[in-house]
This record gives sequence, C-alpha cells and structure tokens, in this order.
Amino acid sequence: MNPSEWFTEQLPGADSAFSLKIKKKLHEEQSAFQFLEIYETETFGNLMVIDGCTMVSTRDNFFYHEMMSHPALYTHPNPKRVWIIGGGDCGTLKEVLKHDSVEHAVQIDIDERVTRLAEIYFPELCESNGDPRAELKFIDGIKWVKEAEPNSVDIIIVDSTDPVGPAEGLFSKAFYHDCFNCLSEHGMVVQQSESALYHLKLIGEMRGAMASAGFGHLQTLFFPQCIYPSGWWSATIASKASLAKFRELEAANKPFDTTYYNVDIHRAALAQPEFFKKAFSL
Amino acid sequence: MNPSEWFTEQLPGADSAFSLKIKKKLHEEQSAFQFLEIYETETFGNLMVIDGCTMVSTRDNFFYHEMMSHPALYTHPNPKRVWIIGGGDCGTLKEVLKHDSVEHAVQIDIDERVTRLAEIYFPELCESNGDPRAELKFIDGIKWVKEAEPNSVDIIIVDSTDPVGPAEGLFSKAFYHDCFNCLSEHGMVVQQSESALYHLKLIGEMRGAMASAGFGHLQTLFFPQCIYPSGWWSATIASKASLAKFRELEAANKPFDTTYYNVDIHRAALAQPEFFKKAFSL
Repeated sequence: MNPSEWFTEQLPGADSAFSLKIKKKLHEEQSAFQFLEIYETETFGNLMVIDGCTMVSTRDNFFYHEMMSHPALYTHPNPKRVWIIGGGDCGTLKEVLKHDSVEHAVQIDIDERVTRLAEIYFPELCESNGDPRAELKFIDGIKWVKEAEPNSVDIIIVDSTDPVGPAEGLFSKAFYHDCFNCLSEHGMVVQQSESALYHLKLIGEMRGAMASAGFGHLQTLFFPQCIYPSGWWSATIASKASLAKFRELEAANKPFDTTYYNVDIHRAALAQPEFFKKAFSL
Repeated sequence: MNPSEWFTEQLPGADSAFSLKIKKKLHEEQSAFQFLEIYETETFGNLMVIDGCTMVSTRDNFFYHEMMSHPALYTHPNPKRVWIIGGGDCGTLKEVLKHDSVEHAVQIDIDERVTRLAEIYFPELCESNGDPRAELKFIDGIKWVKEAEPNSVDIIIVDSTDPVGPAEGLFSKAFYHDCFNCLSEHGMVVQQSESALYHLKLIGEMRGAMASAGFGHLQTLFFPQCIYPSGWWSATIASKASLAKFRELEAANKPFDTTYYNVDIHRAALAQPEFFKKAFSL
C-alpha cells in the first residue's frame, strides 16, 4: 500500500486499522473545534474525517443514520419533538424527518463547519434541511440540554464523535441527568455506543451512568457500520418508559424508503449476543 | 503505520483494507495448495492468513464458527451426519460436535497443513478433534461430494476460502448439484457467502446456482466478522425442506456454551436488510 493513496484510521486500543483507497483529498481545515478532512475515495464515495477518525462515507452511512433514528422513533409512542446533539452531517436529521409525527426537529452541533462541508460534499444527507420542521443550531449541545425546561423534548439523539475531545461531556452522568430533566413522560435518549467487541467497558460505563441518572429502561442495539472500528457498531437507548415493545405494525408499514432498516431489522438489532448478556447480566 | 509492524489485507474490489498490528510472524510455508502464514498480533491473539487473506484470529473467530454451524444444526430436524468441506482450522467441527444429535462429523479439507498449524497455534479450536464422532480427511471435498452415495449426509457445511483458487469449484452449480444428490430428505448446505455490502453479485449468483441445482429453500444469514472485509459477513443455507422454522425451544435451552450465538441471535441473523430484499425480490 502506498500511504499517499490511502486514508487509514488506526484505532490505538485495538491495534487494528481500516483503510480506504482515495482518489484525492477534496478539503481540509482546522475549525474552531476539530480538524476536518474530506476525501474522494475509490469506491466509498466521499469520506469525512474528524480528528483522524472516519465519520461518514457516501456509501455506507445509511446503516448508522437509519439505526440511530428509526428504532427510537418507532419505540416512542408519539415522538413530536426531537433533538439531535451533534449530527452535523445532517444524515440523522433527514431520517428523523421521515416520521410524520415529528413536528420539530432541532440539530444542535457545536461546529457549523461540519454542516457547511456536508452541504457541499454530502448534499444527499442535507436534502431535508429546508423542511419547515427542521431547525439547525450551532451551539454547545451540553449547555443547551442543561438549560432546557422540563418536558421540552420527546427524544434526544446523541450523534456525536467518540468520547474524547468536544464529545467527552456527552458520555457523562451529568449530561444524562440533564437529559432526564428536560425529557417528557415517555422520553428517551439514544446514543451511539461504539463497538461491543472493542469498547465493552465504555458501553458498561455508559449504561451505568444512564441508569444512575434515573433512566429505568436500557436497550443496546447492534448493527453493521463498515467504516467504523471492527465494522460492528451499537447504539444505546435510555428511556423513562418500558422498552419492551415498539410500534411494530407501523414500522412494518413505514411510509418511507430506507436502505437497511425495516421491521425485521429493528427486531434483529435488539438481539443481545451471548457475551454481552453475560457481561451485563441481562 | 510502519508496514513491518502490521499485517494488512487489501481487498481489491472494494478498495478497502483491514490491518492488525503484529508482534511477530510465527510461521510461514507454501503448502501443496496455498501460502500459509501465522502471526502473533497485539490484541487479536494469533492470526492465520491464507494466500494473503485473513482466515481466523483467536479473538473473533467465534462469530464465524458459531454462525456457520448452530443456525443450520438447529434448523434441521435431526442432524446426525455432518460434513464440513474446508474448515481445516477445526473451529466449525468443534461447534458441530456440541450438538448431541450428531453421530458422525467429517471434516474434509484438501490441505492437511492448515489443520497441523491450527493444532499448534489455535489449540482451543482443535480440542474436539479427538471426539470419537469426529473424522478428519485431507482430500478433495469436491470429489468427495461428487462420489458420495445418495442419502449419506444430513448437513454439508462449506467452510471455505474465497471463491478463487482451490475453493472456486465450491461455488458452482455442479457442486451444489452433487450436494443435492447425496443429502438426505431434509438435507441442507450452508456456505459462507462473503459480505452483502461488497459481494452482493456473488451472493446472487450463489443463490441462483443453489436454486437451479434443485434446492427449493434459501436463506441468507448475517453476522459480524471483524477481520473479514467490511466487518459484516454472511452465510447462505440451501435446503431441500422448508426453512420457515427452526427448533427455537431447543436453541433457547442449548446445553452448551457459546460466545455470540443464542436463540435471539439466530432469529436476528435471519432478518433481511431492506436493500437485500429489494436486490433479490424477497
């Protein structure tokens, strides 16, 4: 491999690396918060990299964006108000807005440059940004949640980078406590929770922090995400109300297109691997 | 990345690559059939590489070996006779022998050196090789199946390398036809079928060849496999009898340990992603 022809993300803890062959670097900049790069790859379309970590590719982002939104939105009985903390590429926002019940979806990413670059290099992810129900804020999501009034949101989706740098505070008990306080009766947080093969300890700490912040119901979902470390990713839902059921009939008759998600995939994502059940006594 | 410290598998078609940091190379040899390498990695234990492709690591082989065996064995009503074509590392054989119904399990790998190296570097995968029900043959699996009598086997597991080189004939209509002829009434073939993200065309061709060889029931299962391209792997079952049900109650009460597989994971693996359903009109 000629290093100049490849982008490589090397994961220090796991001593593994994933590489994509690139045609060229399209852009790079140091924003006020992070180092942003955009590559044109050979077979994955465009690739956004933040602080050296792959964030989103044209080819495979559908796994992540669909699984960060549809399972939670089809579990909540009637999600009207959704906040996306992070999510600056707008892909999660686009999926959320596919749900007719949603009246107001606010994307709160601290770094406006991520969204401005997504508009140029991932226009298909930004195509719902003009929806009258959508609002884009470029402020500190942690502060936003901390200052929010009780009962001001139904679902908070934490679509953040890894728990280092600007996103570190999004993995803390204090943050989950603030989420709990501003969520409505059936409110829930869904957060990307890394790889169960590589980051089991982090998932355990996250689940512990969510429970101690008051959430009585937890659910970790599993799905493929090829460009992320191990290729196998997870999201964890923390809910005030039971997660035993989701709106299966409506999911089975979803009035919008998806590439990965469907009602069977939703059920499948809830299956807990044997080692995961043992680790958390599920 | 210092190339001398990493093993990298580069997938030409997808222009992506996966790397593991290595402590040292433990062994290499050119067998009569393939080039075999064994590495000691930093965090994945030992790694076997055949003709440049990762085959098995200590850390994550459980996904593949469990999902190549337990779904098929819990779908067949009473699997007594199982053949494993390929599978020289003996990991699939070990999983198959966990089923009490199995009276005779034959592993047929053309390359004895794979098994001899597994005995040294993956002893945990070989710990059932002395089971009186196990038989290891080092002959051509294609020829073995072609010459077999009708009704001589219940499940054929094709645990092969990729469809180039010695394994190419294992992905052909002629081979599936020979399997059909020697399988019993409820007989089935289960074969690793690569990544649905990278190799959808190959899966389609395989399913087509299986159907035209006479198998009336097909099922593709999905599971993580971190060291394989895309991190998301599949197996395809071709069966003479309906695949609509499996022995769920027995799977829920399996009398043996697994690391990934359980009854919920079995159901989950059967969920077909939306793009896969569309590709094959499922």
